[in-house]
Amino acid sequence: MNKFWSKAVKRTEPYVPGEQLKDPNIIKLNTNENPYGPSPQVSRSIQTEMTQSLHLYPAPDADELRDQIGSYYKLDRDYIFTGNGSDEVLAFSFMAFFEEYTKIRFPAITYSFYPVYAKLFDIPYEEVPLKRDFTLAPEDFFGADGGVIIANPNAPTGLYLGVETIEEIVRNNPERVVIIDEAYIDFAPASAVSLVKRYPNLLIVRTMSKSRSLAGLRVGFAIGDPGLTEGLNRIKDSVNSYTIDRLAIVGATAAIKDEEYFQKTRQKIIDTREWIISELKKRGFHVLPSKANFIFVSHYKTSAASLYQRLKDSGFLVRHFQRPEIDHYLRITVGSDEQMTSFLDTLDSILPSASSTVRD
Amino acid sequence: MNKFWSKAVKRTEPYVPGEQLKDPNIIKLNTNENPYGPSPQVSRSIQTEMTQSLHLYPAPDADELRDQIGSYYKLDRDYIFTGNGSDEVLAFSFMAFFEEYTKIRFPAITYSFYPVYAKLFDIPYEEVPLKRDFTLAPEDFFGADGGVIIANPNAPTGLYLGVETIEEIVRNNPERVVIIDEAYIDFAPASAVSLVKRYPNLLIVRTMSKSRSLAGLRVGFAIGDPGLTEGLNRIKDSVNSYTIDRLAIVGATAAIKDEEYFQKTRQKIIDTREWIISELKKRGFHVLPSKANFIFVSHYKTSAASLYQRLKDSGFLVRHFQRPEIDHYLRITVGSDEQMTSFLDTLDSILPSASSTVRD
Repeated sequence: MNKFWSKAVKRTEPYVPGEQLKDPNIIKLNTNENPYGPSPQVSRSIQTEMTQSLHLYPAPDADELRDQIGSYYKLDRDYIFTGNGSDEVLAFSFMAFFEEYTKIRFPAITYSFYPVYAKLFDIPYEEVPLKRDFTLAPEDFFGADGGVIIANPNAPTGLYLGVETIEEIVRNNPERVVIIDEAYIDFAPASAVSLVKRYPNLLIVRTMSKSRSLAGLRVGFAIGDPGLTEGLNRIKDSVNSYTIDRLAIVGATAAIKDEEYFQKTRQKIIDTREWIISELKKRGFHVLPSKANFIFVSHYKTSAASLYQRLKDSGFLVRHFQRPEIDHYLRITVGSDEQMTSFLDTLDSILPSASSTVRD
Repeated sequence: MNKFWSKAVKRTEPYVPGEQLKDPNIIKLNTNENPYGPSPQVSRSIQTEMTQSLHLYPAPDADELRDQIGSYYKLDRDYIFTGNGSDEVLAFSFMAFFEEYTKIRFPAITYSFYPVYAKLFDIPYEEVPLKRDFTLAPEDFFGADGGVIIANPNAPTGLYLGVETIEEIVRNNPERVVIIDEAYIDFAPASAVSLVKRYPNLLIVRTMSKSRSLAGLRVGFAIGDPGLTEGLNRIKDSVNSYTIDRLAIVGATAAIKDEEYFQKTRQKIIDTREWIISELKKRGFHVLPSKANFIFVSHYKTSAASLYQRLKDSGFLVRHFQRPEIDHYLRITVGSDEQMTSFLDTLDSILPSASSTVRD
């Protein structure tokens, strides 16, 4: 504690991101990165841009990128707000639409950055308990005092809510903003983006770090009524005029343009996910029905903490959350088939008589 | 005004950055960009990085870059905080060290982003009047209730305060943080960075957009006591774990390493500045003694507004601030010798019998 800190600093409880190990031999299955890398068009675009204009400021509103995203979703540019990763977009959204003194709601088990934002901006919140199977009751989110934020698919469970359920929640909060954090939606059946034209209180937040494989480039965006995106712009333009650099703007634009590559790699990850789920079930794991690029699993015989450690010792980094409700689970990113085959081999050598255990 | 906006959005008065025209034939002398482009090492580093790791998150604390900056200033990494341009670093600094209800002070004429931050975070402020020659009285900043922020050299005047003056102000605010925004210090005689080890309340903010020619890459940093940088980290880690992308980290690191290129281009700009100042004086301009990479000028015969427009019509974009105290001035970025020669030629064709007017 430093005597110069403001009350805001004092009340923070900063987020701790997943480990980034420097050892290149470690297979990282802990931060839901994409094993395939971005479209080859991305580096081509960056190549051109970097030789010309690094000395000039970027376009403050990233119009080129917003146009591309807008045209992808068949929406005008005004429906699109872009930022430095979905984390920054979420932070700006908390500032723009949630308030001191009015309690917002989010699921008790979800992306652990939400309470971090709430603490920083002094926004009271209610963590709505999930059912034992980690599903949520939509009516628990109706009529929230200060607004709602829900990750769909949820993290770290991977559970997905259909568009009708999202619509029910949005419709039952007509005076408050409902934020749907769709970081993983490209691995799931359908996005709620189809609702934004009908609901001026719905804000969808997206990242290019997962399905577009650009975690290293820091680009996220929000989709919502122009009234909401204008609110976000007012916050952004009071913090930092240019949050996305020139290389990120052209790289992200190129990634959105390459639909074929996107569909191919997205489908590969979905296929690998389904395969790894069935393989893990054969090995005695309980696996939640994930619609994301990660799975949330527990093993009937082995504690998650010890499995985490033994996997790490064997060169695989997965995520273990030390919270009582979920500390018997591990979150494992879906890597490439090759990585997951090697992961299964390692598991088989670690688990007690694992390869012969069949239990679903 | 949208009914979903928070009080924070409602009280914002967003910053409006200098125009970014798309016409490549316009010579931009309006946002203090560097005409020389970054060190060639920058694109080499980016080239290597982008083929390998765009799908992986960056290092959250940009250790590689902080180590490089630290070693440049002979300080431990803990004295360095990095962010997405100095604008973001300033925003985090306002949040971390300034408070509601205690008034901060800054000069009445300075970087117009300071009141924007203050409004967003609801921090009261006092704009301290400058003398008629735009200089400040250091004692006006002693014992500030809530803290002090001063740009040195100041913008848009270009006026510079010596290290002893900065030290006086810092020493006379022992209970409050004094932020010195050194965006343009590399074009001036000396930085106050030599004071950070002695004053735990001094925070120096820097950008790589100007002297390092990386406006397109979005990298800024702060130098201060580890108690202060920890406060900044707590804010950052409550907003966005990774504010600088992989390409920006390696690019900025490469730029700091290339000392020879830095010294050469920095000196060129200083030389051009001195030359253009003398040329403009010959043409009847009043020119403030700038120590930045821009000059602040007024003409005894021609209004700034009309000169701004006529320069724009002739292909030169400069900055005109529509504030009564300074609306008879133009801020002109120091470009390359070639750009400035062409700028002078254009001026000569615009100004009333300008080339023959000699007046200092």
